[in-house]
Amino acid sequence: MKVLVLGGDGFCGWPTSLGLSNSGYDITIVDNLSRRKIDIELECDSLTPIQPISTRLKVWKSVSGRDIQFVNLDVARQYHKLFTLIKELRPDAIIHFAEQRAAPYSMKSPFHKRYTVDNNINATHNLLCAIAESELDIHLVHLGTMGVYGYGTAGMAIPEGYLNVKVDCGNGELKDLEILYPANPGSVYHLTKTQDALMFYYYNKNDGIRVTDLHQGVVWGTNTPETMMDERLINRFDYDGDYGTVLNRFLMQAAIGHPLTVHGTGGQTRAFIHIRDTVKCIRIALENPPQKGDKVQIFNQTTETHTVRNLAELVSEISGAEIRYYRNPRKEATENKLNVLNERFLQLGLNPVTLQEGLLSEVMDIAKKYEYRCDKSKIICKSLWTKDIEIDAEGSNIPINQPGEREAP
Amino acid sequence: MKVLVLGGDGFCGWPTSLGLSNSGYDITIVDNLSRRKIDIELECDSLTPIQPISTRLKVWKSVSGRDIQFVNLDVARQYHKLFTLIKELRPDAIIHFAEQRAAPYSMKSPFHKRYTVDNNINATHNLLCAIAESELDIHLVHLGTMGVYGYGTAGMAIPEGYLNVKVDCGNGELKDLEILYPANPGSVYHLTKTQDALMFYYYNKNDGIRVTDLHQGVVWGTNTPETMMDERLINRFDYDGDYGTVLNRFLMQAAIGHPLTVHGTGGQTRAFIHIRDTVKCIRIALENPPQKGDKVQIFNQTTETHTVRNLAELVSEISGAEIRYYRNPRKEATENKLNVLNERFLQLGLNPVTLQEGLLSEVMDIAKKYEYRCDKSKIICKSLWTKDIEIDAEGSNIPINQPGEREAP
Repeated sequence: MKVLVLGGDGFCGWPTSLGLSNSGYDITIVDNLSRRKIDIELECDSLTPIQPISTRLKVWKSVSGRDIQFVNLDVARQYHKLFTLIKELRPDAIIHFAEQRAAPYSMKSPFHKRYTVDNNINATHNLLCAIAESELDIHLVHLGTMGVYGYGTAGMAIPEGYLNVKVDCGNGELKDLEILYPANPGSVYHLTKTQDALMFYYYNKNDGIRVTDLHQGVVWGTNTPETMMDERLINRFDYDGDYGTVLNRFLMQAAIGHPLTVHGTGGQTRAFIHIRDTVKCIRIALENPPQKGDKVQIFNQTTETHTVRNLAELVSEISGAEIRYYRNPRKEATENKLNVLNERFLQLGLNPVTLQEGLLSEVMDIAKKYEYRCDKSKIICKSLWTKDIEIDAEGSNIPINQPGEREAP
Repeated sequence: MKVLVLGGDGFCGWPTSLGLSNSGYDITIVDNLSRRKIDIELECDSLTPIQPISTRLKVWKSVSGRDIQFVNLDVARQYHKLFTLIKELRPDAIIHFAEQRAAPYSMKSPFHKRYTVDNNINATHNLLCAIAESELDIHLVHLGTMGVYGYGTAGMAIPEGYLNVKVDCGNGELKDLEILYPANPGSVYHLTKTQDALMFYYYNKNDGIRVTDLHQGVVWGTNTPETMMDERLINRFDYDGDYGTVLNRFLMQAAIGHPLTVHGTGGQTRAFIHIRDTVKCIRIALENPPQKGDKVQIFNQTTETHTVRNLAELVSEISGAEIRYYRNPRKEATENKLNVLNERFLQLGLNPVTLQEGLLSEVMDIAKKYEYRCDKSKIICKSLWTKDIEIDAEGSNIPINQPGEREAP
């Protein structure tokens, strides 16, 4: 099966490309290397040393015997190049990771908000437009986020994309209706994913494009069996306040002796998935495409939920790290419950990797190995959701005495 | 009250700017003249001869004694210029018409789809970003469309923006929930308005921006009391297959002796509003802003609903024009019912202009007066929603023998 991976040089895209290639898929990566350029902007590198894409692909060929093609292309800006590639390559499926993926980055400034909207919306729309124009029957697999749902409504479990509701028709009669789950984005980044969902809905309806939208939880872990085959294949490890995901940040902080940085009370419940399961889920999605005429297929790509506080306590227990509470830079509920259904992947054979001490230690071991590459000034978050949050002279969040406290210490 | 009108040179923006100026509002128009440039692209002019914007404003000053300022600015591209203008002008309200507004134009080609998404999303997002960044408490009034709703769900009346539903919490207990009415766009243009709604929701929630979103029906008519004050103030009159709205097209076709062009069976029900009521509704919206902390305020800005077939029959009756049926270029239901609630504007004092023979004749009189400016080759629609619709050698829709027929005659 021929698969185009848009954003295949990134944190999820790279291990996915290698995993699929190793399973015999014919992979072409498209990437404009934007994530590497953002490293330069933020003056913060991946903790793990990542090789240039051409080195990555040469090493992959030498250890696996398999070819992966690479095209440097900006999906949001180079429509004709994208369209021509699709027409010539005739892929069976396209996996779409080519979006700015960090909520804190999307909230740093008007520039970052505008870049995120402009890039993500145009990337998704160019792709849909090009598939429709190509008249090829291509299965589009998109990486969405659990964040499109907001954090739970009316206390009920979050279904997979669609919600059954009853509507009063005016005469007291209740009619059943299936709707897209009402969007409730928590950042500009999340907003773009809710806008993507409308584009998938429309192009599926008007042009019959087959789409699978994966609402992914917060990814943790860094390596997969394939990225461990050679050190030069290692995956990114982001530890900074913008791109680092919460559990990876805690594990890295524990490894280098930094207090664990919990925002607010740490009572935010989030859905999680290990990077190895990301790769497995995408393969399952490729193998279970919607049929022509089907509506957009939506899976919740997540395996467990935890509060941030519980994760900090777990990491503290196994590492002895101190927990420190900071003002929450996000505009969100102090505490929330989250109950997520993920039966579709389980039914299709996913056997989830859950939080095990072994895997937690593996991440800490990597962090220790590359501690010499860490710039500690990048650990504390500096991106603020609104201007009414007090910060210190460096622009960083302020530690607080009591979890959830709003006042300065 | 100081009001910035984005898109104030267009079909709705121009009469709104004059109407508000005449009522004593202090108006600044922002426009990049994109609609005039699209005339050049489409090789089709407004039936009425419209003057350059500087002439329009000079004439307005001479007949009314009032000043309107003009800034040539691309809202979707020139963020810093927009932000600076807002900071310096400190408007009380901003009316946002600055979007590509024709469904057929948005479906002409991948270029037109991409232009519409890129322009409309970035325009709305730049505006929200700039208001948030300015830290000014500005009321944003946006021109949306009835098309965000699709054409009716479960047979019930379409409420004003929000829908009350009941959700099963898993234990059989039904909980009440108020949600944004589920979006069901019928074209890429309509899609962008549903994406706008998510941006309003988010920036209202995160930054407290006060927003009124007006879901407008199909506009008909051309003149208002202000645009009639001097011939050089005349409003646009679009009769072509891309920008012409259905009733204006029928009236113009009747006036020049062209058969009325009905698509499919003409069984499509649409919501309508006269351009004079557009101006009145916007004034009512300005005078009834949401309060700080209120959610996005949504009004259905429409006064009556009709099927396209009934409108054709009405125009045929008063003019003797023949009705001709054409293949429907849109992907939509052959027939639909539409029941729209518009109580909020009625409660706030709107006394609607409805279809009256006098006003219909007024439009036909204008069409007759400027018939010499008409390019008849632009009347038949050429924009197709999908590639499976047969067209003639000129790329135009094909007349059919029976209403709704799909085969060639």
